[in-house]
Amino acid sequence: MMKVWVIEGDGGIDKLTRVERNVPTPGPSEILVRMKANSINYRDYSTIQDPRARGIRGPRIPNSDGAGIVEAVGAGVSAFKPGDRVVGTFFQNWIAGPVRDVVMPSALGGPIDGVLAEYVVLKETGALPIPKHLSFEEAATLPCAALTAWHCLFAAGKAQAGQTVLLLGTGGVSIFAQQFAKMAGIRTIITSSSDEKLARAKTLGANELVNYRRHPDWETEVSRLTDGRGVDLVIEVGGAGTLQKSAASVRIGGRISLVGILSGGLMDPTIFMRKSITLKGVYVGPRDMFSAMNAALEHHAIRPVIDATVDFDAAKDAYRMMEKAAHFGKIVISI
Amino acid sequence: MMKVWVIEGDGGIDKLTRVERNVPTPGPSEILVRMKANSINYRDYSTIQDPRARGIRGPRIPNSDGAGIVEAVGAGVSAFKPGDRVVGTFFQNWIAGPVRDVVMPSALGGPIDGVLAEYVVLKETGALPIPKHLSFEEAATLPCAALTAWHCLFAAGKAQAGQTVLLLGTGGVSIFAQQFAKMAGIRTIITSSSDEKLARAKTLGANELVNYRRHPDWETEVSRLTDGRGVDLVIEVGGAGTLQKSAASVRIGGRISLVGILSGGLMDPTIFMRKSITLKGVYVGPRDMFSAMNAALEHHAIRPVIDATVDFDAAKDAYRMMEKAAHFGKIVISI
Amino acid sequence: MMKVWVIEGDGGIDKLTRVERNVPTPGPSEILVRMKANSINYRDYSTIQDPRARGIRGPRIPNSDGAGIVEAVGAGVSAFKPGDRVVGTFFQNWIAGPVRDVVMPSALGGPIDGVLAEYVVLKETGALPIPKHLSFEEAATLPCAALTAWHCLFAAGKAQAGQTVLLLGTGGVSIFAQQFAKMAGIRTIITSSSDEKLARAKTLGANELVNYRRHPDWETEVSRLTDGRGVDLVIEVGGAGTLQKSAASVRIGGRISLVGILSGGLMDPTIFMRKSITLKGVYVGPRDMFSAMNAALEHHAIRPVIDATVDFDAAKDAYRMMEKAAHFGKIVISI
Amino acid sequence: MMKVWVIEGDGGIDKLTRVERNVPTPGPSEILVRMKANSINYRDYSTIQDPRARGIRGPRIPNSDGAGIVEAVGAGVSAFKPGDRVVGTFFQNWIAGPVRDVVMPSALGGPIDGVLAEYVVLKETGALPIPKHLSFEEAATLPCAALTAWHCLFAAGKAQAGQTVLLLGTGGVSIFAQQFAKMAGIRTIITSSSDEKLARAKTLGANELVNYRRHPDWETEVSRLTDGRGVDLVIEVGGAGTLQKSAASVRIGGRISLVGILSGGLMDPTIFMRKSITLKGVYVGPRDMFSAMNAALEHHAIRPVIDATVDFDAAKDAYRMMEKAAHFGKIVISI
Repeated sequence: MMKVWVIEGDGGIDKLTRVERNVPTPGPSEILVRMKANSINYRDYSTIQDPRARGIRGPRIPNSDGAGIVEAVGAGVSAFKPGDRVVGTFFQNWIAGPVRDVVMPSALGGPIDGVLAEYVVLKETGALPIPKHLSFEEAATLPCAALTAWHCLFAAGKAQAGQTVLLLGTGGVSIFAQQFAKMAGIRTIITSSSDEKLARAKTLGANELVNYRRHPDWETEVSRLTDGRGVDLVIEVGGAGTLQKSAASVRIGGRISLVGILSGGLMDPTIFMRKSITLKGVYVGPRDMFSAMNAALEHHAIRPVIDATVDFDAAKDAYRMMEKAAHFGKIVISI
Repeated sequence: MMKVWVIEGDGGIDKLTRVERNVPTPGPSEILVRMKANSINYRDYSTIQDPRARGIRGPRIPNSDGAGIVEAVGAGVSAFKPGDRVVGTFFQNWIAGPVRDVVMPSALGGPIDGVLAEYVVLKETGALPIPKHLSFEEAATLPCAALTAWHCLFAAGKAQAGQTVLLLGTGGVSIFAQQFAKMAGIRTIITSSSDEKLARAKTLGANELVNYRRHPDWETEVSRLTDGRGVDLVIEVGGAGTLQKSAASVRIGGRISLVGILSGGLMDPTIFMRKSITLKGVYVGPRDMFSAMNAALEHHAIRPVIDATVDFDAAKDAYRMMEKAAHFGKIVISI
Repeated sequence: MMKVWVIEGDGGIDKLTRVERNVPTPGPSEILVRMKANSINYRDYSTIQDPRARGIRGPRIPNSDGAGIVEAVGAGVSAFKPGDRVVGTFFQNWIAGPVRDVVMPSALGGPIDGVLAEYVVLKETGALPIPKHLSFEEAATLPCAALTAWHCLFAAGKAQAGQTVLLLGTGGVSIFAQQFAKMAGIRTIITSSSDEKLARAKTLGANELVNYRRHPDWETEVSRLTDGRGVDLVIEVGGAGTLQKSAASVRIGGRISLVGILSGGLMDPTIFMRKSITLKGVYVGPRDMFSAMNAALEHHAIRPVIDATVDFDAAKDAYRMMEKAAHFGKIVISI
Repeated sequence: MMKVWVIEGDGGIDKLTRVERNVPTPGPSEILVRMKANSINYRDYSTIQDPRARGIRGPRIPNSDGAGIVEAVGAGVSAFKPGDRVVGTFFQNWIAGPVRDVVMPSALGGPIDGVLAEYVVLKETGALPIPKHLSFEEAATLPCAALTAWHCLFAAGKAQAGQTVLLLGTGGVSIFAQQFAKMAGIRTIITSSSDEKLARAKTLGANELVNYRRHPDWETEVSRLTDGRGVDLVIEVGGAGTLQKSAASVRIGGRISLVGILSGGLMDPTIFMRKSITLKGVYVGPRDMFSAMNAALEHHAIRPVIDATVDFDAAKDAYRMMEKAAHFGKIVISI
């Protein structure tokens, strides 16, 4: 038997329940992973808060991001063997190429059970070796936030050395984007409401810091910092209303990678046309991209920034931290 | 001396004035063109209606699209000689590559004088030979609407044979897009409020017709016509509110080329993220793209669809037709 | 029991042997297909002639291209059911995105057994529905030659309406490329040693015909037909020595899609640099591309060109025809 | 009057002649530049050695790369004013986008006069401001070698952080590529016949060093250093015979940027097809790319590596150094 957390009924952190289930058996081309760590994303929090909105009925194991040790392998598995350290992929069915219809229903912790469990079965092609220099906790931060940041910056955003990227806030995606931008020679402007968080971002290589409390019209500040030209790319993770300011912050012919859960604001799209902006919705990424990212993490010995780690039994605390939105980088659950 | 039309004061079709000016002299790397035809676009109409909104003070010659005969060439011109049939480019400074800051101030009939004149000076690199099979009237339709359609369909939209594109309405851009899609083996769905216009679109090769009067929820109809999958690309030329429906009409991972003057509606951008949509603002295109388009027009002997032609002296009538928005294809002014 | 053909020992068409084997059972995520037709490619012929050169030891079933009816499905299969008409993919492991190491060992009829058998087990993700308007024989021509032509023309070659493509000879890839080019509004120049074959190519829409017997310096002829400019793309399927001529035939900044088995000639690569040419090796393509191609085939009701069809028992005759290289389009084996 | 060097007759370093000419006058949209420094490339050396091979008849001023101070501006120039520090572009006509026919005849020091002169007239769009942190000597190294390296690495080569690039030798292009790769988080393997040069490359951030004297089969060494996988990109600047080894060194689906003057070797192109390699001929790049590179140079305060600087009067010595091919980085002529 194993312990798992499940979302019950109408959701809410308080309704998260720890139950016992049988340890699953890996089928052909599947692996059984003994989970050592999860990381959580805003998406996991919002799924727990309102599972109905995502079409979830009945109990569902939350979380997309987990790392652990291969316990057993099913028939025909050649990529892994028991004892291997692995991290799962957010979409079990997205190997390579652009997103397609068949990808969506394979998201862990949404349409199918996630990884907040002592044991999880993954597809052989739904896992990757953990970069050698990373712990399980660190590896668990990669599947959603790190890959999204990579996708936003390089694939969707086509950012290159010498260009300037605008990062909004200091959540998981933005902090990974800051680390990747630094690695790739890209200049960054980062915003936060907290001078202390901005100071931490600076130690990660952030080039320009904008406190949006002090500069509610932060797009003006961005314009000033780019000599009136605007940034080449915005990684837009924001809530209501930031997209309009992001569009004002980007240069003619620039790009916006749109990610995260936008909380319902409306915007006037005319500016996309006037400035020939490319707006690209980004939702995690394929396994091949994850693999390329891992090669870079290893080569540069980059370590994810973990804000807090809680125990499996205290998993609810992790979502409560997410709710407060006071974190810098990632929140991790150790199993 | 020559006759030109100029926008005066606060604008308005009635305030368009015909005046006399000296025939200009082409400087080095410039050509003097005796204009034979203009075509007009919604942008020209809206500039005439409200020149202040575009930062225009004082008299300004309207229109971006003109074709004519080279009358004289300035020093160092090698690409053209007197007698050559030429069509101008919308942006006099956009030769190739992505749009840049320096492109914008070189738009004819906006920040600089346009082509509603008997004689016009263009840059040597701001004109192209007219495809052999086209009249001056036909050639005059190309610089803005045709090139925008080409840019939306192939460059920004990456549409390929066998894919499905949604075209909104039967204005200049949509009708060119229909002709180009047919040429390139791309399936089209086209909307209109008029069955008669839809029938005309069908003769140009439109595959599916949607009367949006009969189907106010036309995105449902688009879904039905694509077996629930959605189209690969929308060429969004619409007014307020259509963008939300366009986003609903596009497939997961699909594209929207955003063009034209959107009349102020707001939208919820969440859907771009959820469906990993790419939205790309398109504003005409570079000379190199114009040249590639002309090669295709010639190879396929495609003729632009002209709805009406008025005389130079009756130029105001052209803008009044544009105002009524009852046209199918292009409105031309013969000079 | 079922009948299969196998390559034996050192190879050679005469050594092809028909043997009996047990009908295989589909495992999880696999389907059992009752084969109705194969098509053959030069690659199959050369594998039979010299299996050692491809690292093949022991008996091996040849052929990559087959179509048939689903007889049974393994556990967990949802995409197909018994009775479905399906065509296999060349690489059983190439779903989407660029080619990777893991793709190569999954090629049917090479490193693993092929489809010249009455029954074949394929992966669920290694097959596609047959376009409705095609017979089994026609569908069997698609996996290698058609997809290669599509890849060369659109993905690697970026050919667009109005551009000019050079096709060498009238084998399977070139004839499919001709059909696709016609569909997509692309101008073609095609070469052959036979006026009769050129005349047939013309009926498929070839725009310019070059008999390379009459014009041994056919690159000069290509130059003439493009006003000295050169073609935008060459689909290079040729034997020794044609690549140098192809490079001479392409425009500055143009492209060459390199495909097929080059018989050992050497070339001077300086020209690639001087003319800023992009040369891209193309080896079939992923399942997603196959799916996009099928949509186009259906929309345009394109039918593959079959030169000859032989019975399963007379399979050796098919390879002998390939050896003679007198065919136009595809050679098919009916089962 | 001003002093210029000219290539005379059949060429040869000894025949380079210093003559006096009138200081030219800038026409409209042109600038007059007082030259402060040139850098030289192998292409300049080979042009001097055999001007006939490049179609040069009569006296021709050599060199493409020069930096200096604006002395005067022609009519209509707005981008520069006297006193501005500027560097010229290799192709005076290549502003943006892919290479086209019209670009080639505008190469300085080839089809038109170059910059080995006290005063030179450039197009307004054929010059750029010098990055603030660079001297004239340093800026003079950028137009050909640096931009070629940038083009090879990022545009043609699509290299990204975490990928591995193979650099051949320690000439100007390779050393710039090393500096750019380091800046962009790309791993490098660099070859040389000299351990001392390899040691210098290491100080610039080279990750792996291969002495090709000690490892004549350096492709085996490259394979070893990439765990048998091969590099993602080769920047091929080599002479006869290296291209075959480069193709052996690249991974399946990898890329080769081909640059420089290949000295006549032949190769078997089959490998490009077998490994799905993309080979791209690269010839400098457009002004827009130069501008993007300069932004990166400034942001990272990268300084070009200058091997030797000679005086204007001793210009012949610079070409003799080039002939010896013992340099590391760039050779500069101070004016």
